[in-house]
Amino acid sequence: MNDHLLSCDWGTSTFRLLLLHTPTSRVEAVIQTDNGNAAMYQHWLDQGRPERASFYRSYLQQQVKALSRTCRHALEGLPLMLSGMSSSSIGLCELPYDELPFELDGQLPGHRYFEATNEFPNPIWVFTGLKSATDVMRGEEMQVLGLFPALPEARQTAICIFPGTHSKHIQLHAGRILDFHTYMTGEMFQLMGHHSILKASVEMAQTDNTGISPHFAQGVKVGAQTPLLNALFHVRSRQLLQGEAAADNAQFLSGLLIGSELSTLKDPKAAIVLCAGKKLSPHYRAALDALALPHRCLPASAVEQAVSSGHIRLAAALGICSA
Amino acid sequence: MNDHLLSCDWGTSTFRLLLLHTPTSRVEAVIQTDNGNAAMYQHWLDQGRPERASFYRSYLQQQVKALSRTCRHALEGLPLMLSGMSSSSIGLCELPYDELPFELDGQLPGHRYFEATNEFPNPIWVFTGLKSATDVMRGEEMQVLGLFPALPEARQTAICIFPGTHSKHIQLHAGRILDFHTYMTGEMFQLMGHHSILKASVEMAQTDNTGISPHFAQGVKVGAQTPLLNALFHVRSRQLLQGEAAADNAQFLSGLLIGSELSTLKDPKAAIVLCAGKKLSPHYRAALDALALPHRCLPASAVEQAVSSGHIRLAAALGICSA
Repeated sequence: MNDHLLSCDWGTSTFRLLLLHTPTSRVEAVIQTDNGNAAMYQHWLDQGRPERASFYRSYLQQQVKALSRTCRHALEGLPLMLSGMSSSSIGLCELPYDELPFELDGQLPGHRYFEATNEFPNPIWVFTGLKSATDVMRGEEMQVLGLFPALPEARQTAICIFPGTHSKHIQLHAGRILDFHTYMTGEMFQLMGHHSILKASVEMAQTDNTGISPHFAQGVKVGAQTPLLNALFHVRSRQLLQGEAAADNAQFLSGLLIGSELSTLKDPKAAIVLCAGKKLSPHYRAALDALALPHRCLPASAVEQAVSSGHIRLAAALGICSA
Repeated sequence: MNDHLLSCDWGTSTFRLLLLHTPTSRVEAVIQTDNGNAAMYQHWLDQGRPERASFYRSYLQQQVKALSRTCRHALEGLPLMLSGMSSSSIGLCELPYDELPFELDGQLPGHRYFEATNEFPNPIWVFTGLKSATDVMRGEEMQVLGLFPALPEARQTAICIFPGTHSKHIQLHAGRILDFHTYMTGEMFQLMGHHSILKASVEMAQTDNTGISPHFAQGVKVGAQTPLLNALFHVRSRQLLQGEAAADNAQFLSGLLIGSELSTLKDPKAAIVLCAGKKLSPHYRAALDALALPHRCLPASAVEQAVSSGHIRLAAALGICSA
């Protein structure tokens, strides 16, 4: 049985391919490119719409070869697992969303299998996403699958928060995903800071990894208590009335939006588990603290490897890799 | 005593000067240009920052002359009332905001007076705006002053809604402005429809004056019940999951944002009075109906002339015009 696996997280804007040693979950080689599915889809259109799966598989094959040169290891025939936007309308093959509830212990997600051929010597599994009555996701469900063994809370009742451009709050109960909600928090921050009337009141360059000031916590509290369309205008008033500095105001705006997102968690009956990568973890921890919401934080490194962990679990369940 | 008045509503992006017959409130002539305060401020910077009030007054004088040619009437010496962004950091002269509460029956707003000179033969009154602890406005307070005689509700307790790019909800009690809140509704609609991930899911060109569909009312209800950062993502899900048409989805997005704005009015103890111009009146009426919020609508024409009405009231109070 294989003790290696190719794991690919193919998002809208980024392509990332890993060689994993499955018994230890160790990452042995990585390739990352800007050829996310949006760019690939455009290339595909530009080249006159050749057979789509073959077009995308050719790119995968190039990257597997490049990875092979990097790690000086023959990778032909190794299984390749693909998730994220690969199953979307701009990906390798569009697959219908799975429906709720979704079992985390034993249910194989919807997928399409591509056998190895002479031209494409790696067998490929493309996994689909989830839908609710009002929401969709492709990717975070694979992270939850990967993190599940480290989530004892999910055996009872929990809400996992995955912050980002489009944050997800995923409701878990008795080992199943019951529901989830998307919050446009990160995108709203960029839009407000760069394109709205508020851009004159904030200095966006100052917001990356420069620590968290008291202005952030003030924003969290205002955002949690005030209707958002009104709260946003406070960013401008703070500058006009109190002369707040633009860098401090960017912290306030960031807090405002995260506070608005997290305000839905007031008095949750579920355990709150923060599943954040390195970049956003400090902000969300500070915001949950500012709102006095008890929570547990998963290690950022575990979250950043969650897709790989999910792929390893699925490969083991399929009997194609040792785990 | 004069029975004519020059009334100028000088906003950020538009300049509008009217000749009014004060005893009848009749508009006898109008000039409108794109030289709002943002453009004027840029001209002023470009010309090396000459004395600011004189620079802006020169432009006013040109427009008074142009108006005089239009109506074949000598306008020299007529008082000119100026409000809106004229008293802001990009206007003729920056004036501090007035504070709350603000009396609507007898209190003269903060202002600066410029005597007539040979060069600028019209005496000018520039009126300032209002601030609360967390909010600011320059313009709507003049509309409320103008509408006050038609607002018996304001003698008791009322909330006046002024929809727009930055909607205002103005709380009135016993003839005074007690508080107000700005909602970035109109700007959010433009940002979401043109710059966010949702732009692929809406057809913005279809939203102007094409009637109001059931999708609008659906949006109102979702917007009133769902946290906004999450509700916005429904626009995308509706397209992906239900194949909603982009034009219908634009109506849904519009309803969503107006519903979110108006959700703060659930169970108000105050009378709700809609003060909307022709363009937005149907949308806000439909949204208030969808939320079963009892309200009264002022005629759009009265709202569109409210600044002039305010100027006439103030000119009469100053004893410089008959009313």
